[in-house]
Amino acid sequence: MAGRIAGNRFWLTRKVDMSNTIIEQARLGKADSIVRLALKDESLSLSDALQKIAAGHAVVPSNNTRDIPVPCIIGGGSRIKVNANIGSSMDHESMDEELEKLKMAVSSGAHTVMDLSTGTAWKTILDGITAASPVPLGTVPVYQVFGVAMEKGRDVADVSAEEIFSAVEDHCKAGVDYLTLHCGVTRRSVALLREQGRKMGIVSRGGSLLAEWMEKRGEENPLYTGFDRLSEILREYDVTYSLGDGLRPGCLADAGDRGQIEELISLGELQEKALAAGVQTMIEGPGHVPMDQIAENMRIQKSLCGGAPFYVLGPIVTDIAPGYDHITSAIGGAIAAWNGADFLCYVTPAEHLRLPDIDDVRVGVITARIAAHAADIARGIPGAMDLDNAMAEARASFNWKKQFKLAMDPVTARKFRNEALPEDEDVCSMCGHLCALKTSRRAMGEEEKV
Amino acid sequence: MAGRIAGNRFWLTRKVDMSNTIIEQARLGKADSIVRLALKDESLSLSDALQKIAAGHAVVPSNNTRDIPVPCIIGGGSRIKVNANIGSSMDHESMDEELEKLKMAVSSGAHTVMDLSTGTAWKTILDGITAASPVPLGTVPVYQVFGVAMEKGRDVADVSAEEIFSAVEDHCKAGVDYLTLHCGVTRRSVALLREQGRKMGIVSRGGSLLAEWMEKRGEENPLYTGFDRLSEILREYDVTYSLGDGLRPGCLADAGDRGQIEELISLGELQEKALAAGVQTMIEGPGHVPMDQIAENMRIQKSLCGGAPFYVLGPIVTDIAPGYDHITSAIGGAIAAWNGADFLCYVTPAEHLRLPDIDDVRVGVITARIAAHAADIARGIPGAMDLDNAMAEARASFNWKKQFKLAMDPVTARKFRNEALPEDEDVCSMCGHLCALKTSRRAMGEEEKV
Repeated sequence: MAGRIAGNRFWLTRKVDMSNTIIEQARLGKADSIVRLALKDESLSLSDALQKIAAGHAVVPSNNTRDIPVPCIIGGGSRIKVNANIGSSMDHESMDEELEKLKMAVSSGAHTVMDLSTGTAWKTILDGITAASPVPLGTVPVYQVFGVAMEKGRDVADVSAEEIFSAVEDHCKAGVDYLTLHCGVTRRSVALLREQGRKMGIVSRGGSLLAEWMEKRGEENPLYTGFDRLSEILREYDVTYSLGDGLRPGCLADAGDRGQIEELISLGELQEKALAAGVQTMIEGPGHVPMDQIAENMRIQKSLCGGAPFYVLGPIVTDIAPGYDHITSAIGGAIAAWNGADFLCYVTPAEHLRLPDIDDVRVGVITARIAAHAADIARGIPGAMDLDNAMAEARASFNWKKQFKLAMDPVTARKFRNEALPEDEDVCSMCGHLCALKTSRRAMGEEEKV
Repeated sequence: MAGRIAGNRFWLTRKVDMSNTIIEQARLGKADSIVRLALKDESLSLSDALQKIAAGHAVVPSNNTRDIPVPCIIGGGSRIKVNANIGSSMDHESMDEELEKLKMAVSSGAHTVMDLSTGTAWKTILDGITAASPVPLGTVPVYQVFGVAMEKGRDVADVSAEEIFSAVEDHCKAGVDYLTLHCGVTRRSVALLREQGRKMGIVSRGGSLLAEWMEKRGEENPLYTGFDRLSEILREYDVTYSLGDGLRPGCLADAGDRGQIEELISLGELQEKALAAGVQTMIEGPGHVPMDQIAENMRIQKSLCGGAPFYVLGPIVTDIAPGYDHITSAIGGAIAAWNGADFLCYVTPAEHLRLPDIDDVRVGVITARIAAHAADIARGIPGAMDLDNAMAEARASFNWKKQFKLAMDPVTARKFRNEALPEDEDVCSMCGHLCALKTSRRAMGEEEKV
């Protein structure tokens, strides 16, 4: 298990047992070095982690063709993780910009990154991101198959099932650690959605493309019918499934309808098959959900999908705040994670309006981390409140340096304070000489301590 | 009940029955014109509202010496309201800036404003804000009494109880609609707080000043012992109590300790006395609270305080995100409001770091409104989701103009979109030609509708 230092990164040679995937090793009680590394900041013991991975309650996404210096464990009582989506669209393709976004996402604390590039240069951008990313990387191969075909003037229906499987294999070969695959968008779930009626239809790109393909060809979703073949491909590269929620609600009114829940039932069936095939599996979830329906959503996912890690996008708790959807989703994400979600996909302020820029990536990651951290505390994860306690002590002792060090985003915190430094450097300009902390010390007879 | 048009404002002459306060009128089944106006955007019927006001479950803050063009009802099943704190400190006093903040707060949708000015120019600033504010206005008189005394080099303990009562009357005369008064900071609650121990001590300015006064003089809180006299003053001007949480926790670790709950018990006793004296009353709440303790906090307040409207500051759900405390408090505020809080005090990104500037006011108000609106939906307030449904329809039909119109902050939403307009103006640059909504229409066989 040799390691080498490359710049600041510590690359581990991962393969302990190439004949078995991480989940298969875990069933044998064996821990890949990647799993050990993923437990660095967790309160989970190695044997607990292996049990959770073996049972399908936790995953450590990690393609066996490359090493990840900063892997992570998702689910099973570990700290809530945060993903940042980056990637270009045909309207705007720049490799440098995507690498800058990657850097910003990682330095802001994202645990994983998804490259959602859909333009013609997707492979170049993906290779660049794979080479540069210290954290696990996810993609959505279906975007390329259909996106590139449409750019070449082909109809969605003309894409063959072979092309779809071949794209999945391309992504596995490229070193991607987890793949979003909308395997649960079936003829039945789409029919239920159509029958019940929806304000927003299908708002998942992958889900809608597959539905169009199925509708036009009158065939079942090849990712559903060909799931065993899919699992064989993923198993070969030890890539983790992120079973996509192609029928997630796109507005509050569509939350929890038959199409959404039928898809979740299918994902539960497929998760069982995936585990049997030796492939780690996560389930993706909504979306736009009124606050009072979030806890139920989390519980029904856990019961339908064998306790698999739940990866949620949002949930966004109101539709009327474009420009602030990092906040609408932080509210939903915190409640979701507190009630069972394990993995939060960030949402940036640009959601519903345009592709995120580099600053949106920073704001998106920090905001999702706030939701994740608040949920870690609410779930009682051991040690989750240590930093908060240290911050309280730094505040009580007017130790500004330490406050900045403990802040999730030290640069932003320092910037705010420096914009209006008070005369008395101990306090802040909010209260000035009426600082409650100083008054409190006098009230408690603790003046001498300051 | 004559009205006059002044600019865009519709001023009402309020007095229907000057011999009775709003709560006394409600008990007689009578509605002040201010109460009728406050119900304009509510689903509550007038008779329901009067019952709630009479029982002390709802308040319509409104000083009887001035008119408020845009009053509001707080509590009793009405929509969750949002307050914005403005005001200068000695470190930074500018009348123009405070008026700009007021304008920004109101145009962003704040239902009330509190002027927390503590500098020597407080009265000038308060008069300016009172004259300009179309919404109910709150203040904290104790800041002035002690703040001005300290600026003149006097010790906190040298301020007389008379001066405190006289400051309260000054604020009532100035036309303020509700007053934060920390009447529940008693010798017993402070002793309990000290005995149990706290990381952060007392973080409320008013609470800490009163505690210092009590400690140094060895006397009980005059706002507690002199509560009947206080109520007489407030009753004369029909000013609403906002019974302050002087012992609220200042960090997660201090949440729910004996000092905090003992104060709440006293506030419950005082609320009963206030109602008996014909004074409308709200109760203020925390603060910094782990997410899993928020619902209990709301329920215990309602049971201890006779179902009085609950006015919360935050709650902030993690201490380690300075620069993002509008978000930490939106998470807590949404959960609090869903579980019984009625009134959210905004927290701006500048919290813990400096006084908010004008842009912080905008962000703070919109963020608190998001939390309030999400809670309105979760509580099932009739009509709360209408705008969300309209937004879903505007999105589904690519009606960008309508989307901006429905957005909580149209200027910000439009700005984001205009920064990266896609080639196809229907869609946005996130998905470009892979727009899920367009694909979905094809999948559903609805192409002709677009």
